[in-house]
Amino acid sequence: MIEQDGALLVMFGATGDLARRKLYPAIYSLYCEGKLGEKFALVGVSRRPRTNEQFREELRKSIEEFARHSIENDERWQAFAAHFVYQSLDINEISHFVTLQNVASALEQQFGLTGNRLFYLAIAPELFGKVGKNLRDGGVLDTAGWHRLVIEKPFGYDLPSAEQLNAQINEVFSEQQIFRIDHYLGKEMVQNIQAIRFANRLFEPLWNRHHIANVQITTSESIGVEERGTYYDQSGALRDMVQNHMLQMLALITMDEPSSFESERIRDEKVKVIQALRQFTTDDEVRANVSRGQYIEGVVNGKQLPAYREEPNVSDQSTTETYFAARMMIDNERWQGVPFYLRTGKRLPVKATEIVIELKTTDMAIGGVPVQPLPNLLVIRIQPNEGIHIRFNTKKSGTFAQVTPVDFDFNNNKGKPPGSVPEAYERLLYDALRGDSSYFTRWDEVASAWRFVDPIAKAWRTDAADLQFYAAGSWGPSKGNGLPEEDGFKWWPVSGQADRDALWYAESI
Amino acid sequence: MIEQDGALLVMFGATGDLARRKLYPAIYSLYCEGKLGEKFALVGVSRRPRTNEQFREELRKSIEEFARHSIENDERWQAFAAHFVYQSLDINEISHFVTLQNVASALEQQFGLTGNRLFYLAIAPELFGKVGKNLRDGGVLDTAGWHRLVIEKPFGYDLPSAEQLNAQINEVFSEQQIFRIDHYLGKEMVQNIQAIRFANRLFEPLWNRHHIANVQITTSESIGVEERGTYYDQSGALRDMVQNHMLQMLALITMDEPSSFESERIRDEKVKVIQALRQFTTDDEVRANVSRGQYIEGVVNGKQLPAYREEPNVSDQSTTETYFAARMMIDNERWQGVPFYLRTGKRLPVKATEIVIELKTTDMAIGGVPVQPLPNLLVIRIQPNEGIHIRFNTKKSGTFAQVTPVDFDFNNNKGKPPGSVPEAYERLLYDALRGDSSYFTRWDEVASAWRFVDPIAKAWRTDAADLQFYAAGSWGPSKGNGLPEEDGFKWWPVSGQADRDALWYAESI
Repeated sequence: MIEQDGALLVMFGATGDLARRKLYPAIYSLYCEGKLGEKFALVGVSRRPRTNEQFREELRKSIEEFARHSIENDERWQAFAAHFVYQSLDINEISHFVTLQNVASALEQQFGLTGNRLFYLAIAPELFGKVGKNLRDGGVLDTAGWHRLVIEKPFGYDLPSAEQLNAQINEVFSEQQIFRIDHYLGKEMVQNIQAIRFANRLFEPLWNRHHIANVQITTSESIGVEERGTYYDQSGALRDMVQNHMLQMLALITMDEPSSFESERIRDEKVKVIQALRQFTTDDEVRANVSRGQYIEGVVNGKQLPAYREEPNVSDQSTTETYFAARMMIDNERWQGVPFYLRTGKRLPVKATEIVIELKTTDMAIGGVPVQPLPNLLVIRIQPNEGIHIRFNTKKSGTFAQVTPVDFDFNNNKGKPPGSVPEAYERLLYDALRGDSSYFTRWDEVASAWRFVDPIAKAWRTDAADLQFYAAGSWGPSKGNGLPEEDGFKWWPVSGQADRDALWYAESI
Repeated sequence: MIEQDGALLVMFGATGDLARRKLYPAIYSLYCEGKLGEKFALVGVSRRPRTNEQFREELRKSIEEFARHSIENDERWQAFAAHFVYQSLDINEISHFVTLQNVASALEQQFGLTGNRLFYLAIAPELFGKVGKNLRDGGVLDTAGWHRLVIEKPFGYDLPSAEQLNAQINEVFSEQQIFRIDHYLGKEMVQNIQAIRFANRLFEPLWNRHHIANVQITTSESIGVEERGTYYDQSGALRDMVQNHMLQMLALITMDEPSSFESERIRDEKVKVIQALRQFTTDDEVRANVSRGQYIEGVVNGKQLPAYREEPNVSDQSTTETYFAARMMIDNERWQGVPFYLRTGKRLPVKATEIVIELKTTDMAIGGVPVQPLPNLLVIRIQPNEGIHIRFNTKKSGTFAQVTPVDFDFNNNKGKPPGSVPEAYERLLYDALRGDSSYFTRWDEVASAWRFVDPIAKAWRTDAADLQFYAAGSWGPSKGNGLPEEDGFKWWPVSGQADRDALWYAESI
């Protein structure tokens, strides 16, 4: 349950896609599960005109289409919908913010709220500064209780632009009030990483360079750029996936144990390890360790897929990367010498986010016969499969001197009714309402991630010769696919990967 | 394949139960799987008169009843059976051994064998010495090629009697020629222990007192003493199960890595750790660390079961233990301070042989909430289920700060047709024929085990006050059940255990 005082949500971008697909369904789930209580209200804010009735009708449709919980009956729906009002607002009009304050106050009175206000900015980042200032100047922050700002990526385009954005927000909100959403941090299995690492004697002592050979983080998408061409062609995989989601997962996998599992202490450790990432200091270093690719035409299941440059709102000269892979190193005692291979891309054969921890092998012989056991693997499956996979060696049954890997698979969703597991946004909204910032990114994390990413982008700007093209539906360019081989390793297949030479492919899923 | 020269088997006790139920079916499996070739022959030896035809008829019945492979057709059967002849023999009659030598030589000529002879003594140990001498004096050992002696437990009643027995055998056979069968060492999952331990980075670094809290070895039987009263009432659980099978499993779990996986080097390490077992030096130490029990009447599934003392050929005053449990300690750097709990008994609720490795817990908190994770477990299931079970902690799905154990189960026989996995005796016979003594017990292992066991037997002889009675079908006496609790632990349920409070009970089996 959120605090007894309850809270008012002010939703900027109330008629947008994110609100409709993710945020309203999340609020409804929290409500249905009693986590929200009755002491909450929401003002939907957008430029478009809507009556409260129209807004609630759209709300209902969004929930019917996207929510985990269905609407039981009309009475119960009316009780829920009564918490929602709409206000049309021009972000540049200070008088509209004054009106917003009046609407908000009235709602608070109606539901017995005491001034806790959460502002969710599901809008373009360039508007963040303006909204913040007008919230302050329109008197919307003049209440008792806490004020929190929830914002979505992108947090800048590089370090300077991120610093600028952050400075604008900081004019009104302090770091403690800012909740930067990285929705990967809301995923069940990402949150599970800490439990897996720190609640198990089976893993904790092995979690270092003495026992881990390499770590592989894959976030592959089968879709192309779809309708996001305008945004994506400016962003690319590096900014869209690596700077945020992938470095966050890397940080959770590699951070030291925090002094306590309070949010600031967790984030202290995450930022520490991001800062310890070995930065590429020359363009040559970037080209040696990083692969970028862009998809061209391809045929998948008999269907002709277009090249990236043919996608809507994409430049036909674009050098934007739709594929990224890199070898990263961490310069600290725990990880010195362990390569971390990260890869992400669009139009790859399957959709999968998975983390593979490959342990070093052992040297042994059975019955005088030397055996070369395969490495033990610990695989954390983030999405769409959620689970844990372990592979280790046993004696091959019925033989006298052979070992063979066996595979253990835990499907996190097995046996659970569909829709019974909270969505990422539910967790994160709930955390923000409770003031738990463990799974939100702190400014120094964002800045450190840009510091790592910027030299890559700089090398790429200098010369596009390293951009490799790959057929849509393939596993990306040769440089990226060959990165682990350069160190004597290989990419382990992810679940669902078409080339099922993977013995450990989970039959149980 | 056994060596190219082939071998002659001389089976003493050829009409006995062990030969009929285990040895002939094992030989037949090896034959069917091409491991024996055609260059072998067997002389069945026993006191009873049999023609070769009668013997082969009994052989056929034994295989039809007990073998994994069925008899395909009569022609193929005749080809197999032709390798078998019978000779009636009085062990005290030297002339009979001369005849045996003649029969053996003729057979060897028939099948092109060059004098390799394996003598399997499926007879009472008190006859071993006599048989050995008469084999020698009758000229049965006067061939080129190797001579090996395979013998079955019991290897003595205590250290002095074992030494005496060994001395008798040594008059004719050297240690290198003696293959002492402990059929537990032929079990698939017992042989797997080395692969699990030494071929996996996931386990090897954890295999010591820094990470292991305790180890539990259970060998429970649901049957009573059945027709073995005469033997068992003299032996008891300590001599029947602990001195051999259970200490052997303990040795495989705890031994250091051998310098190579050759048989002598493996046995070097096993004997080393048996010698490092902390011996009980006083009767009080025995009573503090060891529990003995004897079953009395009980009701299982509505069926009234008799007390041990009412069983056939058991003294009605018997103080023989049908249950044994102990806390054992190993005084070396690897295991100092780690308790090993061993228990075995008859008329327990289920039949199961399993080894549980309980890891120490970790200290952690999630989201500021301290969690007390359950310990990680590695369970090696020896019989009747064969497999590996792993339990560790993950975040409880859908919660924010709870961990919950998940259970991974590998069933070694899953997906394999029944009868496709070799029986223990097949492996061991095959090993003996190839001269691989890795899974046979060396004299110094036997002697060291008696050295550990004798003080327990001595304390028991002094005073029977510690003998506790337990109802047939229960989990044994209170002292044994409470042993781990004395150290803050508990017995983990074995698979099939009726009280299924065990979350980790394997659904997949």
